[in-house]
Amino acid sequence: MEERIKELVLSKNFGEIRKFLLEENAVDIANLFETLEGDDIVRVFRLLPKELAAETFSYMEADMQQSIVEAITDRELSGIIDELFLDDTVDFIDEMPANVVKRVLKNTDPNTRKLINHFLQYEDDTAGSIMTIEFVDLKKQMTVREAFEHIRKIGVDKETVYTCYVTNKNRKLQGVLSVKDLLLADYDNIVGDIMDTNVIYVHTDDDKEEVVNALSKYNFLALPVVDKESRLVGIVTIDDAIDVLQDENTEDIEKMAAITPSDKSYFKTGVFETFVQRIPWLMILMISAAFTGAIISYFEEALGKMVILTSFIPMFMGTGGNAGGQSSVTIIRGISLGEIEFGDLFKAMWKEIRVGVLCGISLAFVNFLKLLFIDKVNFEVSMVVNLTLVATVFLAKIIGCVLPITAKKLKLDPAVVASPFITTIIDALSLVIYFNIASNILNI
Amino acid sequence: MEERIKELVLSKNFGEIRKFLLEENAVDIANLFETLEGDDIVRVFRLLPKELAAETFSYMEADMQQSIVEAITDRELSGIIDELFLDDTVDFIDEMPANVVKRVLKNTDPNTRKLINHFLQYEDDTAGSIMTIEFVDLKKQMTVREAFEHIRKIGVDKETVYTCYVTNKNRKLQGVLSVKDLLLADYDNIVGDIMDTNVIYVHTDDDKEEVVNALSKYNFLALPVVDKESRLVGIVTIDDAIDVLQDENTEDIEKMAAITPSDKSYFKTGVFETFVQRIPWLMILMISAAFTGAIISYFEEALGKMVILTSFIPMFMGTGGNAGGQSSVTIIRGISLGEIEFGDLFKAMWKEIRVGVLCGISLAFVNFLKLLFIDKVNFEVSMVVNLTLVATVFLAKIIGCVLPITAKKLKLDPAVVASPFITTIIDALSLVIYFNIASNILNI
Repeated sequence: MEERIKELVLSKNFGEIRKFLLEENAVDIANLFETLEGDDIVRVFRLLPKELAAETFSYMEADMQQSIVEAITDRELSGIIDELFLDDTVDFIDEMPANVVKRVLKNTDPNTRKLINHFLQYEDDTAGSIMTIEFVDLKKQMTVREAFEHIRKIGVDKETVYTCYVTNKNRKLQGVLSVKDLLLADYDNIVGDIMDTNVIYVHTDDDKEEVVNALSKYNFLALPVVDKESRLVGIVTIDDAIDVLQDENTEDIEKMAAITPSDKSYFKTGVFETFVQRIPWLMILMISAAFTGAIISYFEEALGKMVILTSFIPMFMGTGGNAGGQSSVTIIRGISLGEIEFGDLFKAMWKEIRVGVLCGISLAFVNFLKLLFIDKVNFEVSMVVNLTLVATVFLAKIIGCVLPITAKKLKLDPAVVASPFITTIIDALSLVIYFNIASNILNI
Repeated sequence: MEERIKELVLSKNFGEIRKFLLEENAVDIANLFETLEGDDIVRVFRLLPKELAAETFSYMEADMQQSIVEAITDRELSGIIDELFLDDTVDFIDEMPANVVKRVLKNTDPNTRKLINHFLQYEDDTAGSIMTIEFVDLKKQMTVREAFEHIRKIGVDKETVYTCYVTNKNRKLQGVLSVKDLLLADYDNIVGDIMDTNVIYVHTDDDKEEVVNALSKYNFLALPVVDKESRLVGIVTIDDAIDVLQDENTEDIEKMAAITPSDKSYFKTGVFETFVQRIPWLMILMISAAFTGAIISYFEEALGKMVILTSFIPMFMGTGGNAGGQSSVTIIRGISLGEIEFGDLFKAMWKEIRVGVLCGISLAFVNFLKLLFIDKVNFEVSMVVNLTLVATVFLAKIIGCVLPITAKKLKLDPAVVASPFITTIIDALSLVIYFNIASNILNI
C-alpha cells in the first residue's frame, strides 16, 4: 500500500491516487501520509473529499496536522474545522503552537469558537476533557417514529447515534435508550415508556479513569456527562475511552519503570526528550542508593573480616526487590482496576503476610541446600543468610502492599510512589537486617 | 445499595427485592450477589425475570455461577442457557468443572450444543475464542427498508445490531455497513450500493491481541471473523475487546514484575495460588543472583584490600537495573501497541545509545561531585566508580532495547524474557566491568 502510493505520487498520477484513497479507511490514509514528504503532503491531502479529509485529519499525528494547516488556505482550514467533531478539534488545538491556534480560531464560526474555548477549560484528566457534545437527545413524549426521524435529520453530525439520551426542557437527563431498543419497539411506542430511567452518568470534573472504568464495567457504547446542575453537556464514546485506557496503561507501566510518562509514541519522542523523561528518576534513585552504600560502609569493618558476607548482598537486593515488586505491582494494578481500596488494607496485608511467609521459607529452604551442598558454607553463615532471606522477603511483601494503598489514600500516585522507591527501601532494610543478624550470630 | 438488599433479604420481603432489582443494571445486580450467602443466593436469583437473570448470570464470577447452577433445576438451567449469548455460554462452560459442564450440555438444545463444542475447540488466545456468532447479516440486493425489517425481526437475539455484514449465498463476506448508514440512507436504497466493500476482518486463528489492536485502531464497534474459506463465522464486539485489552495489559504488567499471570482478580486468588504465581520467578532470580555473588567472590581478595569498593555495589546494581528497566519496559510497551517491530531494531538501538550516553554522563557528573565534595573519596576510586557508571548505564540501555525486540522475533514473550532477567544480566555485567576497571586503575 505504501509502495503503491509512493509510485503514484512520483508519477504525479493524481487521478489514480484519488481513486486509490477513496477505497481506503481514514485511519490507514492518515498513516500513509507519514510516508509522504514536502509539498506532496498537501497535494495529496487536497485530493480527499471534504468529509474524508476531515476524518483523516483527525487521525493524524500533531506534527502532520500542523504542517497541513500551515500549507492550506484559510478557507480550506475553515472547511475542515466545520467537518471535524468538536472533541477532535479540541484535541488538535491542544497540541498546536499559539500562532496556529489563533489562525484556527479565527477561521471558526463564533458559536464553535465559544464551545472550543469552553472545552479547553476542562482540566486535563477529567471527563469534560474527553467528552464530545455531538450526541442525540430525544424528548419523553416523542414516538419511536418521531425519534427515528429526529435521528435521521440530525444524526449525520453526531459522533455516536446509537445511544440516545432523553432530556427535559431544562436539559436535565431523564432517561436513556439505545437505537436497538428503538429498532425493536413499535413505531407508535412513546419514548418515555421504553426508556431506561436508571441512567448511569459522570460529572464533567470526574477523573477520566473513572469514566473508562464505568464504560468498560457496564459494556456501554457511550456514557453521558452532566454539569454541576445535572444538565447533560456531553458524552464520552467508547472509542475515545479505549484511547484513554491505552494511554493510562502506558502511563502506569512507565511510572512503575521509573519513567516520567509522555503521551507520544516511542519513535515520535526525540532523544533529548526521552533523556529528560528518564534522568530525574535515575538521578533520584542513584542518590538514594548511596544510602544503601552508606549502610555497607558502616559495617565495613565486619565485612573486611568476613568478605564472604559481601557475596550474598546481590542476592538479598535482587530477591528483596523482586518480592516487593511482585506485591506492589499486583496491588497497583488492582487499584487502577478498582478492585482494591483503602478499606482493603488489612485484608491485603493479611494475604501478603501469608504469601510472604510461604515464599520466604521456600526460598530459604532451597538456598539452604545450595549453601550446604554446593557452596559448602559453614552452618553459622548459612543461618545468617537464610534468616535474612526470610525476613527480607516477608518485609518486602508487606511494604509492597502497604506503600501503594497508603499512597492512594494520601492522594499520591501509587505507581510513582511505590514502584521506583520500593527497591531502594527494601535494599536498605535487608542490609540492616543482614548485618544485625550477622553480628549477633557470628559475633563480628 | 448493598445495605438495602441485605435488609430486604433479612426481612424476607421478596416482592420489594424484586422491585428493587428491576431498577438496577445487570452488572450491579451481579455484584450484589457477592454480598449474599447460602440459600439466599438462589432465592434472590429466582426473583429475576428470565432475560435479566441470564444477563446477570453472564456478569457473575465463575464460583457464583457454579453455586447457582448447582442449586437450580435442569429446566431453569436450560432457560438460562437459551437466553445467554453463545460467547458468554462458552466462557462460562470454560470455567466449570467436568460434572457441571456435562449437566449444562445435557440441558442445551442439540444445535447449540454442537456450536458450543465447536467454539470450545478454538485455541485460548485466538480471535475464535472471543468471537460470538450473534451478528446481523444482510444480502446485497436488500433495500434499506428490508434491511430494517430483517434487523427488527432477528435483532433481539444479536449481541450487536449496529454493524451489519453483507454475505453472499456461500457466506463469504462482501461488505459492511452500519445502522447509522442505514438510518441516514433512503428507505429505497439498495444495501449493495451503500455498503463499504473494503472490509477489515480477521481470521479465527489470529491472535486476539491483533483483533483488539485492529478494533481500537479503526474505532470499530465490532470486527468480523472469517474461517479459512473466507466465510463469515462470527464477530468480536468492542465490549469483549476491552476485557481482552485489560486482561492483556494486566498480564504484561505481571510478567514484567516476574509474576506468572492469572486471570483472577487479586482477592479472588487464594494465598497458595498467589504463592504459586510468584515463587518460580523468585526462585529462578534468586539462583541467578548467585551468579552475581560468584563474581563478587571471585574478586574477594581485591575487595578485602579495599572494602570501600563494596559500598558502591548497590548503586551500580540499582542504577543499572533502573536504566535497563526503563528501556526494556518502554520497548515492550511499544511492541504490544504495535509501534515497534523487528525491522526497527537498529533505529531503536541508535536512539537508546544516544539516550544511554546522555544519561550515563549526567549521572557520572553528579556522582563525581558527590564523591569529591561529600564522600571525599580519592580521585582514582572516583574515576573507577564513574567510568563504571557510564559503562553500566550505556550497556543497560542497549540490552534493555535489544533483548525484548529479539525475544519477539524468536517468538518468545518479550515481557517474560526481557523484564525479570534484565536486572540479573546487568548486575553481573556491571560487576565484571567494575572489578576490571578497578584492578586496572587501582592496581589491586
